[in-house]
Amino acid sequence: MEKTEEGLDPWFVTGLVEGEGCFTVSFTFRRRLRIGIETRPSFSISLNERDLPLIQSIHAFFNCGAVRYSRNDRTYKYESRSVADLVTKVIPHFAGFPLKGRKAKDFEMFADICRKVRANRHLNRECLKKIIEDAYRMNPSGKRRHERNDLLRKLGELKV
Amino acid sequence: MEKTEEGLDPWFVTGLVEGEGCFTVSFTFRRRLRIGIETRPSFSISLNERDLPLIQSIHAFFNCGAVRYSRNDRTYKYESRSVADLVTKVIPHFAGFPLKGRKAKDFEMFADICRKVRANRHLNRECLKKIIEDAYRMNPSGKRRHERNDLLRKLGELKV
Repeated sequence: MEKTEEGLDPWFVTGLVEGEGCFTVSFTFRRRLRIGIETRPSFSISLNERDLPLIQSIHAFFNCGAVRYSRNDRTYKYESRSVADLVTKVIPHFAGFPLKGRKAKDFEMFADICRKVRANRHLNRECLKKIIEDAYRMNPSGKRRHERNDLLRKLGELKV
Repeated sequence: MEKTEEGLDPWFVTGLVEGEGCFTVSFTFRRRLRIGIETRPSFSISLNERDLPLIQSIHAFFNCGAVRYSRNDRTYKYESRSVADLVTKVIPHFAGFPLKGRKAKDFEMFADICRKVRANRHLNRECLKKIIEDAYRMNPSGKRRHERNDLLRKLGELKV
């Protein structure tokens, strides 16, 4: 585990996430899965490379996830993708120190999806359909590998 | 003064500013001024238009400055430009709840410049030269109306 000189105040973390955090759920086609689509929630914060110590403090604060460098835009990204960590470490933080602005709505949909995935409800076609629709209502400015309708079409083809 | 449903936690404000805040000092040529250059410090936070309530809470928190809409990028900007307000209301907040990352360095230079301007030291040519040099070391990605060297050249022409 990383060491930090001083711990971050939990409200500071929420404030930083309000501006720089990203809650997103992406989807990948997977033949080996019976439902055909993998659901991948991710919580991340990206900061300019000069802010590596701050990113490391964030990593220590959440005590899960990983930090990696993006050469393209010279940023360090903290990211947590384990559903178990998201449900037990990340989401409870924002329950205690809630986001204030429009990101609060993204967070609520994200938390709901993570809890469904944790309970394996994303393996049910109807539930996955709802998850995909909710996920595409979040972060409207983000880029997506797959169109929402491609995913829903794929889902329609399969019997689960 | 704006009313807010609930006050913001001071650490939340610092965290938001770490990501979204901007400390900047701009300069304008002014014939009516003996020194020829006006020094204008500004502290601002811009958020997407959907976050107007949050921007209003920030406005209420600092109890100074103003909020205005930018049609170009569909954001609301909170901005404080009064040097008296900056020195007595904005800067003391960050002394108590300090920034953590590289923005802390911008802030230190900004606070130093504001205190000099408050004490009218920017009307002294040597001191203004140092202020301009420091200001151009902050926010290297920001756009500027005047080149640093144009300002320093202008300063060299004048006798104060």
